[in-house]
Amino acid sequence: MIKVGIVGGTGYTGVELLRLLAQHPEAEIVAITSRGDAGTAVSSMFPSLRGRLSLKFQDPASANLKACDVVFFATPNGVAMQQAPALLDAGVRVIDLAADFRIRDVGEWGQWYGMQHASPEWVGKAVYGLPEHHRAAIRNARLVANPGCYPTAVQLGFMPLLEAGLVEVDHLVADAKSGVSGAGRKAEIPALFSEAADNFKAYAVAGHRHLPEIRQGLSTMAGNPVGLTFVPHLTPLIRGIHATLYARIKTEADFQEVFQRRYKAEPFVDVMPPNSHPDTRSVRAANVCRIAVHRPQQGNIVVVLSVIDNLVKGAAGQAVQNMNIMFGLPETEGLWQLAVLP
Amino acid sequence: MIKVGIVGGTGYTGVELLRLLAQHPEAEIVAITSRGDAGTAVSSMFPSLRGRLSLKFQDPASANLKACDVVFFATPNGVAMQQAPALLDAGVRVIDLAADFRIRDVGEWGQWYGMQHASPEWVGKAVYGLPEHHRAAIRNARLVANPGCYPTAVQLGFMPLLEAGLVEVDHLVADAKSGVSGAGRKAEIPALFSEAADNFKAYAVAGHRHLPEIRQGLSTMAGNPVGLTFVPHLTPLIRGIHATLYARIKTEADFQEVFQRRYKAEPFVDVMPPNSHPDTRSVRAANVCRIAVHRPQQGNIVVVLSVIDNLVKGAAGQAVQNMNIMFGLPETEGLWQLAVLP
Amino acid sequence: MIKVGIVGGTGYTGVELLRLLAQHPEAEIVAITSRGDAGTAVSSMFPSLRGRLSLKFQDPASANLKACDVVFFATPNGVAMQQAPALLDAGVRVIDLAADFRIRDVGEWGQWYGMQHASPEWVGKAVYGLPEHHRAAIRNARLVANPGCYPTAVQLGFMPLLEAGLVEVDHLVADAKSGVSGAGRKAEIPALFSEAADNFKAYAVAGHRHLPEIRQGLSTMAGNPVGLTFVPHLTPLIRGIHATLYARIKTEADFQEVFQRRYKAEPFVDVMPPNSHPDTRSVRAANVCRIAVHRPQQGNIVVVLSVIDNLVKGAAGQAVQNMNIMFGLPETEGLWQLAVLP
Amino acid sequence: MIKVGIVGGTGYTGVELLRLLAQHPEAEIVAITSRGDAGTAVSSMFPSLRGRLSLKFQDPASANLKACDVVFFATPNGVAMQQAPALLDAGVRVIDLAADFRIRDVGEWGQWYGMQHASPEWVGKAVYGLPEHHRAAIRNARLVANPGCYPTAVQLGFMPLLEAGLVEVDHLVADAKSGVSGAGRKAEIPALFSEAADNFKAYAVAGHRHLPEIRQGLSTMAGNPVGLTFVPHLTPLIRGIHATLYARIKTEADFQEVFQRRYKAEPFVDVMPPNSHPDTRSVRAANVCRIAVHRPQQGNIVVVLSVIDNLVKGAAGQAVQNMNIMFGLPETEGLWQLAVLP
Repeated sequence: MIKVGIVGGTGYTGVELLRLLAQHPEAEIVAITSRGDAGTAVSSMFPSLRGRLSLKFQDPASANLKACDVVFFATPNGVAMQQAPALLDAGVRVIDLAADFRIRDVGEWGQWYGMQHASPEWVGKAVYGLPEHHRAAIRNARLVANPGCYPTAVQLGFMPLLEAGLVEVDHLVADAKSGVSGAGRKAEIPALFSEAADNFKAYAVAGHRHLPEIRQGLSTMAGNPVGLTFVPHLTPLIRGIHATLYARIKTEADFQEVFQRRYKAEPFVDVMPPNSHPDTRSVRAANVCRIAVHRPQQGNIVVVLSVIDNLVKGAAGQAVQNMNIMFGLPETEGLWQLAVLP
Repeated sequence: MIKVGIVGGTGYTGVELLRLLAQHPEAEIVAITSRGDAGTAVSSMFPSLRGRLSLKFQDPASANLKACDVVFFATPNGVAMQQAPALLDAGVRVIDLAADFRIRDVGEWGQWYGMQHASPEWVGKAVYGLPEHHRAAIRNARLVANPGCYPTAVQLGFMPLLEAGLVEVDHLVADAKSGVSGAGRKAEIPALFSEAADNFKAYAVAGHRHLPEIRQGLSTMAGNPVGLTFVPHLTPLIRGIHATLYARIKTEADFQEVFQRRYKAEPFVDVMPPNSHPDTRSVRAANVCRIAVHRPQQGNIVVVLSVIDNLVKGAAGQAVQNMNIMFGLPETEGLWQLAVLP
Repeated sequence: MIKVGIVGGTGYTGVELLRLLAQHPEAEIVAITSRGDAGTAVSSMFPSLRGRLSLKFQDPASANLKACDVVFFATPNGVAMQQAPALLDAGVRVIDLAADFRIRDVGEWGQWYGMQHASPEWVGKAVYGLPEHHRAAIRNARLVANPGCYPTAVQLGFMPLLEAGLVEVDHLVADAKSGVSGAGRKAEIPALFSEAADNFKAYAVAGHRHLPEIRQGLSTMAGNPVGLTFVPHLTPLIRGIHATLYARIKTEADFQEVFQRRYKAEPFVDVMPPNSHPDTRSVRAANVCRIAVHRPQQGNIVVVLSVIDNLVKGAAGQAVQNMNIMFGLPETEGLWQLAVLP
Repeated sequence: MIKVGIVGGTGYTGVELLRLLAQHPEAEIVAITSRGDAGTAVSSMFPSLRGRLSLKFQDPASANLKACDVVFFATPNGVAMQQAPALLDAGVRVIDLAADFRIRDVGEWGQWYGMQHASPEWVGKAVYGLPEHHRAAIRNARLVANPGCYPTAVQLGFMPLLEAGLVEVDHLVADAKSGVSGAGRKAEIPALFSEAADNFKAYAVAGHRHLPEIRQGLSTMAGNPVGLTFVPHLTPLIRGIHATLYARIKTEADFQEVFQRRYKAEPFVDVMPPNSHPDTRSVRAANVCRIAVHRPQQGNIVVVLSVIDNLVKGAAGQAVQNMNIMFGLPETEGLWQLAVLP
């Protein structure tokens, strides 16, 4: 059994980690910390766990996280870069679900996240945890930077095209839509039901923090810097991301076949048949990315539709997938639940 | 492995049965029938099952259901009473998720369901599949009448009070609220998104088909005929039933303790601590009934709050629970998934 | 033109007042105050008002509210009792949308609201602003206590039965369901989209602040103290209250006829035909209460269904209705918009 | 008073026309037809109209539509082209909310709509009813082809850029999202609450019927054929369209200023300040198109955000706006209601 610790388990990625790990046959949650809720039973905050998880939130100071095999950080940005190094030095492996170790250029990171990086040396050693792109490196990683939700959907959608050099990379467009749980479990007016229900809007068009992360990933895939316009939108779902991707075709190809071949061996990427339209509910609560490829009107634009559950393949599920890889388990262990539909 | 057949798997209880049984370690779905969709791959109708279930819908005429150990009917009312007897005579055990075998008085059944019963003899042999009340009989049942969704939530909420004779039974009130999936996957205007979203309404106040089923169950528990006012409402949830139950206290008691004792050994009924308010999402996609007991203002009315997922504990999950009991499996086998929250 | 001031216009009842008054032919909003948002254009907070309202929020200290004919308080409980007396003394008429002046017994008020009343003398002079019950007194009122949202729906639903003495008053049951905007525009976790969407729950079963207000109103109507069990629920609507009311019949009557006669002359109460089920969307954004009366199974329980938009007939619309009455305008002035359906 | 007839008033655009016209000071609805519901009171189908509209649906055969000044067709595609000519010949002016007269090339129309056009001569005489582009022609039109919902949002968003020749027209991208009421009030499974709620998906990526309509409009504005990729999506709103538009900049300009100048005199187009993100609820139930212009990262892509209520500015509201223009009324008459927020 892998001894697991969780730092900061009171948000939505935290409770989703708890749901997945409490059902994982090879993992045992031994500690979960929360400064504000120390002493509270986890199941009294999240009644969905009643009778299935007897843990209490512990104060970070008193939790013996160094006795864990792996610690997940489900904390706000800027926490893991402070606390992870001590654990890493003690031999604990770390998976950070926040953004602290995702951007290789710490200067750029600082600009987007509004603080100076506290641990640049670990940025260099971190592995970006997109298994479909970095599986080999993840196996031996001590520190995994778990990708953001938008970056997962967008990168998996563009990857086959960029790796094969089939599209122009100067003007990629990613029009992405997210459910409200992506904003976290924070008491803020724009995330209120009466603000977000029966409403649709774009946000952060001038520049969203996931832009540099996506651009970095796509540039690696393309082997060249890419130009990307990324527009995120808020849509009245609890869970789900739908990315609609547009690229100009440079080289003719059977795009359907390109995607199918690229993802044939991937357990968590499903390339749908031609002319499909994946809906977000088809991946609700499941660690799956479903993709469809279109070429409307046989023109010179390829359109990719890519859906994930932002809390699963876009956060906690992918983190557990990374844990499985790091500890030599079957990659699907504990992650084989079917989507909940309807 | 239990060989399972499903008749009529294109509705919401059908796809939920598929989700649960496809993940059940001791069950193998060998046939699923649908007259209208014969030849269609199940996963092309329900993409959530892609890659996990290779079955196609078969024409009922050609499906070899008699080779099954158990057949689930997820059909409209009136089908199982026609088709189940032949299977039962062939030694197949049957679990009917529709209403055909729930009401013992076939005359009363006929009035509420608008047709004459085709198989009154099997009504007498059927066992009402509420495990918390009829577990022993279910073990040996050849035919199980799986309870309705409202009846499950209401009966589990009233049962401890009625069995113990603590409340007046002449004027019970059950104010129940259901998600829209309870109306089934049928193309009808009142179930459209633009009709049911951002809207709340009562319906069938004059008399809902679940009224005689609930009254029959409560009367059995009370040992006397009960008087019941039952008002169902439609609420903009996909899944979930919330029953708010009102009864006048006849005998003083520690109601919290009564409920905890009654359900102590039940794996799928969770009595919450005093002053709790169960929310429907705490049982979303899980085979659980969560209950809280209140006595507002220390008056002489006891209020019980009872929530289930109408498609799980209110339909497919309870059906699988009954299958587990009938075949001597651990009752929780294949039903241990945690609720999906948020 | 009536010169109108609004104290505290940044919540949902505030913006709804703005929507109604900005379209009111006889009202002119001359000042709106908000301590936190002084200097901000109202339409930059609420873009729905762009181009139609050029007002800015003012600091309460600098706003010349004493020059108004009427001031609406759309503030948290406890503000109006501090600030209204000075305005009243200056001859300004006041309509308080909060609870400060609703409960005649200031001791009881203090217990439920957790503070001592600052202006008991004005409690005695305030008129409870339910026009269908107190129209005459409202005409000459200097201070109107605008009813709460639940109290409006429940009182209008029970009133004809109680006034006519047709039901037993010891065990009235009001099972009420509210949209989330009833919780206000406050940054609190339970009102987040990801908490309240696709979820249904009861709350405050032990005792909700509207209980004493409703009980006081019903007792006045009955001419005797009533016993009331009141259970509020949160349902995933933005706007809307649905009250389902249960009472035991004491005296036989044609209940449909009783309701139709009682409300025949009321412009804002609609008694629907027998066997109707009003849905909340049929009053969305409109100042209407729709009611249906049922007697299920011809038994001895009468069931009343009563729906309002909690922000309109349950708050801002009723406040404007009271203003119309106070200033001798046609009662429907500025309140004649049709409900928005779908 | 303008005498108004409505053909086919049982859908969502029909009931929205009724809402707007019943409150219009210069219009009188004298007839409304529905073959299936003849004899039914309009307000019994749409209780939101109770007490405010006493009309019944009439059989088309018996309704005296020729006595009307103007007849609105709120019918499925293919009806107006059959029935409108007789009315037009009788001197009645016609506004068709369906697609029959929108596409000038009847051959192309036939391909997209799957039928042969029954009235090509009237296609040539019809005026496309986008007031912001064709106001002068609408004034004297006998037959107005009211624009589709997507086409309204997309054309108003692109128009200033295309008229001024500021962007490359070969690869325009319109990523559009619609609420479910856009699918109409038809009993179809994909529009069920349990299918469309908490779900997001693209559809018709291969080619949507609004593509040729939009392309025709944009090409007129640009003075040259444009290349357009149009991807519509279904989002869990009742009402609302959000179009996110992408174009490559050809000529430098102050885009904000370009939009403000173009729409300065338009009563129903609101250009928001720089860095705004219009939300659909800010136009809910109002005849407004709100637009924001962005240039992310100061790159060479301009992004336009354009929102409307699909039933108002995208259908019934625009139809009434056209009626106002045709009959010389103030363009805002009966259309000045504020959006309903929250």
